[in-house]
Amino acid sequence: MTKNEKNKEGSITNVSDIGEFALIDELTSGFKSKNKSTIKGIGDDTAVIESGSDSLFLLTKDMLVEGIHFDITYTPLKHLGYKSIIVNLSDIYSMNGTPTQAAIGIAISSRYSVEALKEFYEGVKLACDLYNVDLVGGDTCSSQSGLFISVTVTGFVDRDKVTYRSGAKKNDLVCVSGNLGAAYAGLLVLKREKEVFKANPNNQPDISKYSYVIERQLKPEAGKTLVETLDKLGIMPTSMIDVSDGLASEIIHICKSSRSGAYIYEDKIPIDPETIVVADEFDINPATFALNGGEDYELLFTISQKDFETINNHQEIKIIGYISDVLDGANLITSAGQQVPLKAQGWDAFKNK
Amino acid sequence: MTKNEKNKEGSITNVSDIGEFALIDELTSGFKSKNKSTIKGIGDDTAVIESGSDSLFLLTKDMLVEGIHFDITYTPLKHLGYKSIIVNLSDIYSMNGTPTQAAIGIAISSRYSVEALKEFYEGVKLACDLYNVDLVGGDTCSSQSGLFISVTVTGFVDRDKVTYRSGAKKNDLVCVSGNLGAAYAGLLVLKREKEVFKANPNNQPDISKYSYVIERQLKPEAGKTLVETLDKLGIMPTSMIDVSDGLASEIIHICKSSRSGAYIYEDKIPIDPETIVVADEFDINPATFALNGGEDYELLFTISQKDFETINNHQEIKIIGYISDVLDGANLITSAGQQVPLKAQGWDAFKNK
Repeated sequence: MTKNEKNKEGSITNVSDIGEFALIDELTSGFKSKNKSTIKGIGDDTAVIESGSDSLFLLTKDMLVEGIHFDITYTPLKHLGYKSIIVNLSDIYSMNGTPTQAAIGIAISSRYSVEALKEFYEGVKLACDLYNVDLVGGDTCSSQSGLFISVTVTGFVDRDKVTYRSGAKKNDLVCVSGNLGAAYAGLLVLKREKEVFKANPNNQPDISKYSYVIERQLKPEAGKTLVETLDKLGIMPTSMIDVSDGLASEIIHICKSSRSGAYIYEDKIPIDPETIVVADEFDINPATFALNGGEDYELLFTISQKDFETINNHQEIKIIGYISDVLDGANLITSAGQQVPLKAQGWDAFKNK
Repeated sequence: MTKNEKNKEGSITNVSDIGEFALIDELTSGFKSKNKSTIKGIGDDTAVIESGSDSLFLLTKDMLVEGIHFDITYTPLKHLGYKSIIVNLSDIYSMNGTPTQAAIGIAISSRYSVEALKEFYEGVKLACDLYNVDLVGGDTCSSQSGLFISVTVTGFVDRDKVTYRSGAKKNDLVCVSGNLGAAYAGLLVLKREKEVFKANPNNQPDISKYSYVIERQLKPEAGKTLVETLDKLGIMPTSMIDVSDGLASEIIHICKSSRSGAYIYEDKIPIDPETIVVADEFDINPATFALNGGEDYELLFTISQKDFETINNHQEIKIIGYISDVLDGANLITSAGQQVPLKAQGWDAFKNK
């Protein structure tokens, strides 16, 4: 049903009926840019703003909501502070940029103490220090229930290096900066162990053999190294996005923005052995973790075929497919050689897994 | 008790025990700026970032939390969307700047429909259109309960016009851009009528005689006109801040940042007749509304004595006092001629009225 049909009937549309991306489209479609300084508004990982100098200004913001984006029962507050910054830095790197400033707002219920907040801010500081970002705003207020985190990160990108989702060209190589699916594997392990603990609080779970995937879930890193590597190699990506919602969702974003299709090879998707162990335990194809899991914060990008020799066998860069004609759509070539259209079944803030 | 004493005892400190400003100081004191582009970080209305051109970049963010900053039972969603933008624009104007871009994030519980969100976004759009600001990011996700709004606004200010809280000099005139206390008067009326309605839902309150103060509470405006007026008059304010927490709190901010004192004359504070009516009904001195009410979003600023003739009797600018020596502190001269030290009893997100 369209919006108008619903309105005629005078009925109410549940937000979960239309999904996050369609909702944002619906809400923001009436907005038109009026300022010359707005180079890129809604529709990429960050907004791009004219600075009047050689660099462009980048602006991104992300929210993390208790019970939706994180479960405080197994998320240490220091890790949460760290991750809150990282997920925003990731958006800046996905524009081929460098993050420089961060501002954080948190709304907390009365069950959080000053000491708890200090732990959270320790994580914020660690991320800011490691990624050379300045905290320029810190706003704290109370909430009636739950913890809400809102982070804004700004950065710069050379005018001739800014990379959008929209630049992928036919025959470009699709690459990824690291292994995928680990963060989701970590999430599943944490959820499982929480249930085990709830059933019998004396049963202390042994999670040491899952330490890598749990770290990928609780304390992810952003794509600083990849952006620096591409710069050193003299490679300009044709398009780029960070993997926050799962590989399938992200390659579809690139295809839509670039008006192209893509073929991704299942057996080329890098997956860590620990992720495969967890996938086996849950009896799920590990590729499903990579395609639909999300929160990996690796960078997915496309490069011209001419750069193949430069990046081939580079430790940090994995080629997983290629860009094709828009009519092809986004497809997976399975390990068995079958072609399957990709669907964005990734993380959706209104259709929680 | 200091932080260390508490830690020695191993006790837990409630956030409400230390208040918003002290908490933010405590949490952010360990952060040091590392990037040359960070001109002003925490400690003013907005962050100021080097752009490399003639203009500096301004960045501000603010959160609005259901049950803390607004009561959805008497706040139309369209007004709420409008106000969410305005409170952030106000921070940009307080730097003598011009807002250009906004990004909004909202977390909503399942009781909000798509139609409700569209109403909210209508208000956002109205504010963006009226103030010539582009929406460059719109993020929506779900919350377990309540509505959380997080807005980031960016803008520019000419390098030689940027105005901080810290520039007030002895003998400068303290000015305000419009009447104060009205927003708080509106809030009290709305709260009272809500109670009347709860007691007897058939009793439809007549709020028409309070329309001005209610509008100041629900649909405030930001200081665009004042910034344009100062520019036209060729006046460079020596310090500026927006009145979000009440005049007392704001003048104390200016005094602390400028290492100065101030004298404010009670009988010079502009107060609307409707605000006085409400103050009388609640048996409170109207000046208390102005000093401690907050949410007026007028601009409080200081100018040099040499500009007195230019602004004297200007319709938009009211002189309410003067800057003095730091040893004097911030003081009110009451209508009866008494000198009273001002205290920041304004709106505190952890010590809700």
